[in-house]
Amino acid sequence: MTRILITGGGGFLGQKLAARLQTKGTLGAARIAEIVLADLTPPPPPTGPVPCRSVALDIADNAAVGRLFEPAFDVIFHLAAVVSGAAEAEFDLGMRVNLMGSIAVFEAARAAANSPIVVYASSVAVHGGTAPDLVTDGVELNPQTSYGTQKAMAELLLTDMSRKGFLDGRGLRLPTVSIRPGKANAAASSFMSSIFRDTLEGRTANCPVGRDFAVWHSAPRTVTDNLIHAAEVERAALGPNRCFNLPGRTDTIGAMIDAMTRVAGPDAAARITWDADPVIAGIVAGWRGHFRPDHALALGFRADASFEDSVRWFLEDDIVRGA
Amino acid sequence: MTRILITGGGGFLGQKLAARLQTKGTLGAARIAEIVLADLTPPPPPTGPVPCRSVALDIADNAAVGRLFEPAFDVIFHLAAVVSGAAEAEFDLGMRVNLMGSIAVFEAARAAANSPIVVYASSVAVHGGTAPDLVTDGVELNPQTSYGTQKAMAELLLTDMSRKGFLDGRGLRLPTVSIRPGKANAAASSFMSSIFRDTLEGRTANCPVGRDFAVWHSAPRTVTDNLIHAAEVERAALGPNRCFNLPGRTDTIGAMIDAMTRVAGPDAAARITWDADPVIAGIVAGWRGHFRPDHALALGFRADASFEDSVRWFLEDDIVRGA
Repeated sequence: MTRILITGGGGFLGQKLAARLQTKGTLGAARIAEIVLADLTPPPPPTGPVPCRSVALDIADNAAVGRLFEPAFDVIFHLAAVVSGAAEAEFDLGMRVNLMGSIAVFEAARAAANSPIVVYASSVAVHGGTAPDLVTDGVELNPQTSYGTQKAMAELLLTDMSRKGFLDGRGLRLPTVSIRPGKANAAASSFMSSIFRDTLEGRTANCPVGRDFAVWHSAPRTVTDNLIHAAEVERAALGPNRCFNLPGRTDTIGAMIDAMTRVAGPDAAARITWDADPVIAGIVAGWRGHFRPDHALALGFRADASFEDSVRWFLEDDIVRGA
Repeated sequence: MTRILITGGGGFLGQKLAARLQTKGTLGAARIAEIVLADLTPPPPPTGPVPCRSVALDIADNAAVGRLFEPAFDVIFHLAAVVSGAAEAEFDLGMRVNLMGSIAVFEAARAAANSPIVVYASSVAVHGGTAPDLVTDGVELNPQTSYGTQKAMAELLLTDMSRKGFLDGRGLRLPTVSIRPGKANAAASSFMSSIFRDTLEGRTANCPVGRDFAVWHSAPRTVTDNLIHAAEVERAALGPNRCFNLPGRTDTIGAMIDAMTRVAGPDAAARITWDADPVIAGIVAGWRGHFRPDHALALGFRADASFEDSVRWFLEDDIVRGA
């Protein structure tokens, strides 16, 4: 019987993950005994046979995080974060939540003394600067945002605390998740979903970069599968670096729009506006669009077969008609 | 006129750096107005024409660090750290001093609002794990000690705070410093000095690894020169990653002992004992012995010409006769 904690449980990925775990009922060979969703405000728990509980939690409040771990969890999905645009605009907030909050969660996992599995959602934003155009495993992390820096710092701690046996960390550098449901947010990558989601839902959306801009991306369904796989993969296979790039796809914005048109017709693409935004463009230009995630592929993590799939899955899972 | 702070000012490197700055009297084009040495107990200030002041400081005490920065410093040499063996044995102490202490110093430098130069002493211990046998610039940091992890985390923050303009960071990954004066300490690399220093001073010393063990090393004189060069190098030349490997030399322990014998005769080498120590050997085996620090060489940092020089400089600068 497995007890699971999801931080950032109110976010779109936390919600999708909780729903999938509720449907699945098991993690690895073990039945799920309870799922706890934590977020700044108590998130809606997914309905189903697995007991689910929601709690309000300030992730940077060490004492509150510590109390949450009584009794201990077997698996923690640590998704809580301040997104890239917000962490860039408010440095102290990003440090508090993304770095200190992660330290609080990892230390609570250590204090529980059961060396729990900690699946950590890191980001492609750890790459940039001196990284080559094609990012292979083993490239020095040189983030060009505070968000990416804070993620990279927490990655290092996760690996060290795994080496010490305090916990059993698995840090996944998520590609840009598209098509993300919900509202546009302060992530610099927000447009990479809104130009599909908002236009498919009947609204306009702006693309601040050109059609040739290459995006390293993955669908929410695939990212959710990969998060669950991360908790199930053999500890011994992970090696001395617990954090690595997930598989994804490289497509240009133009090719992604064409895929949307093939699946859903031309109306959505016609709702895209093309006003350049140098601030957003400057941030995302520092990211990398081409990856070769050999380590994750060897561990059994998966990529999407096409962006058409992402569009179809959005229409099946997430579209809000008439919004 | 330049005001300088040296944290860890009581350490052997802080003392050598302070003495060199006192002799030099200038840093870059500017005269040195004051040198402040901070350490847990007030360190001895070097005598000479430049005003020097010593202060007792707990580097992890944010308020105390903040008060020290009134008025602001133009250049900070941040050398204070818990050494590798101690940080491995006492995880919380290492986190407090090496990570939180570095954050406190960087935040105080940021709060001073003059974007001061911060020269940060990082370490070869950030490399290991998935790193290749020959470490070039751009290899992912995968430390296999808590010390290396804490150093790597602070490196990332230094680069990000430089990008934001909060400070002007220059992080140097120091090779093993040999021949270090003073007493053996809890650094796993301590034997890499004691088998030379202690035997030259007439005592015995144990070598816990074999003669073939390859060490990436640099002499204290050269490391001190490189720390000063780091404060003087052009900001524009540094690029998007402010932290990099210093030049050094690769020699086997056996070749280093032979060099000592060539300079100082056979008596010292005869005082070395060879009892294997699997704990020490395990830690240092995770480090790398071969580097190609192209970036630092292009920036004008220097390596030693020979280990014979290191022995000669130890005899000139540091040996304690009849100790």
